Amino acid sequence: MSQDGAQEADHAGFKYNRRVYFVETDMAGIVHFSTYFRYMEEAEHALWRAAGLQVANIEKTGGWPRVSASFDYKSPLRFDDEFEVAVRIGNVTRRSFRYDFTFTRGDVLVGSGSITAVCSTKEGGRLRAVDVPQEMIARLRTAAGQ
Amino acid sequence: MSQDGAQEADHAGFKYNRRVYFVETDMAGIVHFSTYFRYMEEAEHALWRAAGLQVANIEKTGGWPRVSASFDYKSPLRFDDEFEVAVRIGNVTRRSFRYDFTFTRGDVLVGSGSITAVCSTKEGGRLRAVDVPQEMIARLRTAAGQ
Amino acid sequence: MSQDGAQEADHAGFKYNRRVYFVETDMAGIVHFSTYFRYMEEAEHALWRAAGLQVANIEKTGGWPRVSASFDYKSPLRFDDEFEVAVRIGNVTRRSFRYDFTFTRGDVLVGSGSITAVCSTKEGGRLRAVDVPQEMIARLRTAAGQ
Amino acid sequence: MSQDGAQEADHAGFKYNRRVYFVETDMAGIVHFSTYFRYMEEAEHALWRAAGLQVANIEKTGGWPRVSASFDYKSPLRFDDEFEVAVRIGNVTRRSFRYDFTFTRGDVLVGSGSITAVCSTKEGGRLRAVDVPQEMIARLRTAAGQ
Repeated sequence: MSQDGAQEADHAGFKYNRRVYFVETDMAGIVHFSTYFRYMEEAEHALWRAAGLQVANIEKTGGWPRVSASFDYKSPLRFDDEFEVAVRIGNVTRRSFRYDFTFTRGDVLVGSGSITAVCSTKEGGRLRAVDVPQEMIARLRTAAGQ
Repeated sequence: MSQDGAQEADHAGFKYNRRVYFVETDMAGIVHFSTYFRYMEEAEHALWRAAGLQVANIEKTGGWPRVSASFDYKSPLRFDDEFEVAVRIGNVTRRSFRYDFTFTRGDVLVGSGSITAVCSTKEGGRLRAVDVPQEMIARLRTAAGQ
Repeated sequence: MSQDGAQEADHAGFKYNRRVYFVETDMAGIVHFSTYFRYMEEAEHALWRAAGLQVANIEKTGGWPRVSASFDYKSPLRFDDEFEVAVRIGNVTRRSFRYDFTFTRGDVLVGSGSITAVCSTKEGGRLRAVDVPQEMIARLRTAAGQ
Repeated sequence: MSQDGAQEADHAGFKYNRRVYFVETDMAGIVHFSTYFRYMEEAEHALWRAAGLQVANIEKTGGWPRVSASFDYKSPLRFDDEFEVAVRIGNVTRRSFRYDFTFTRGDVLVGSGSITAVCSTKEGGRLRAVDVPQEMIARLRTAAGQ
């Protein structure tokens, strides 16, 4: 059975399981290519929960604005498919860090992607970039089994 | 050519024109039934702009929370279809008012729906219901040709 | 922990549990009103799976086209909220049937809604309304604890 | 006024104009990062229409499956913002081609992205990669002012 929530992690990263909803398909009969970016964010937030971090602290962080996002498509997902997203923390710079995602459906590689987010605080309604909190990265890495 | 924005109004109401995007279809080859609720909101906001009203005053109004929404489906929309949404102001009570929408594609009735919104202000982060501003309703009615 | 999938049923209906995704919120800080229609469909499909029915038989059924859908909003959902959707089979006519949904977050009533679907087959690319299969309704009712 | 549809092209590419819908914002008050991928596809399809090409020939082409997609975010879009997407045909290989997109709001650079699509035909329900039709690429380039 597919479960939506925190899963165990191994060396391949933190695992997030999901089932494709009907609305996520398009008239080509497959999941729309933009939806994979939503799946990546879901997996990111599941990782935050597993790390015991406050995922929704928007007022203070401005929501970790994205710098870039990309996805490489290998095999399409279809309605009701159950798939797994493995998340790992990738490259960390002074003010940004990257998530790397691998999507599989059973033994089939669905695709892989990444999101780079910048660390920021909200001051007087405006975002200001800040240094990546090392403690936070450490906890995310641990939750990802790294 | 389809245009996205303010249109003229006649006795049938304010007109909003739209073209179906690919992502709005599902694997059944038609526009997903939830999308019509998004189209209704787009038409609502186009009416606000036509009425010269501040559509995005979320900080003060809390976004006119919805009390109810419904849609009756008659004929499906498909990718690239151009359609028209006619909006009218329906029943107005002390603290809420209703929009009525009719969707057509050429001569074909696509469906009809309605949204009831409550008037509110944001005070200390919490929403409080307030009386419907009569001036606002008057301007929306005028823009809808009523 | 929130789980996405088949749940037990009691007299209140079949239960579907879900967590709010970030993308489902809007700038008012709450779940967009159109999203509840997607949640209802998710719960519908979870009920089909629980009933052992083929949920994705689009080629033959045309996807059970919706005749109408409505929702009454009581209390908003926010990011990361866990909520439960109870589904029951409502009114059944010769060629259509209704699902009734109740949304709760803990003890709080979030809202309630319904979807009426028509039974159909696809013949030569066109949909044709057919009588509601009694066997199917019986299985859905059983899965809903009715 | 913002218009949704075919626009003129200059050396910077074919221009597609759009206004941000309310549902496209998230609780951070800005357009969700996944939405830019939908905007890119809208601009792609507007280019197809401008080129006089059959945009929806899904039965035959399988919908030009995406190989990869990416976006770099520079400045956020907010509700009701009017913005412009410039599209150009980028790198063309034997069996795939790339669209390059630049998003601007007035003089502000919103971001830029690309989509690589593979050419395919549908045979017996399965997709098969085919050589890029040179005639089609020529028409898209012309419509993009290249």
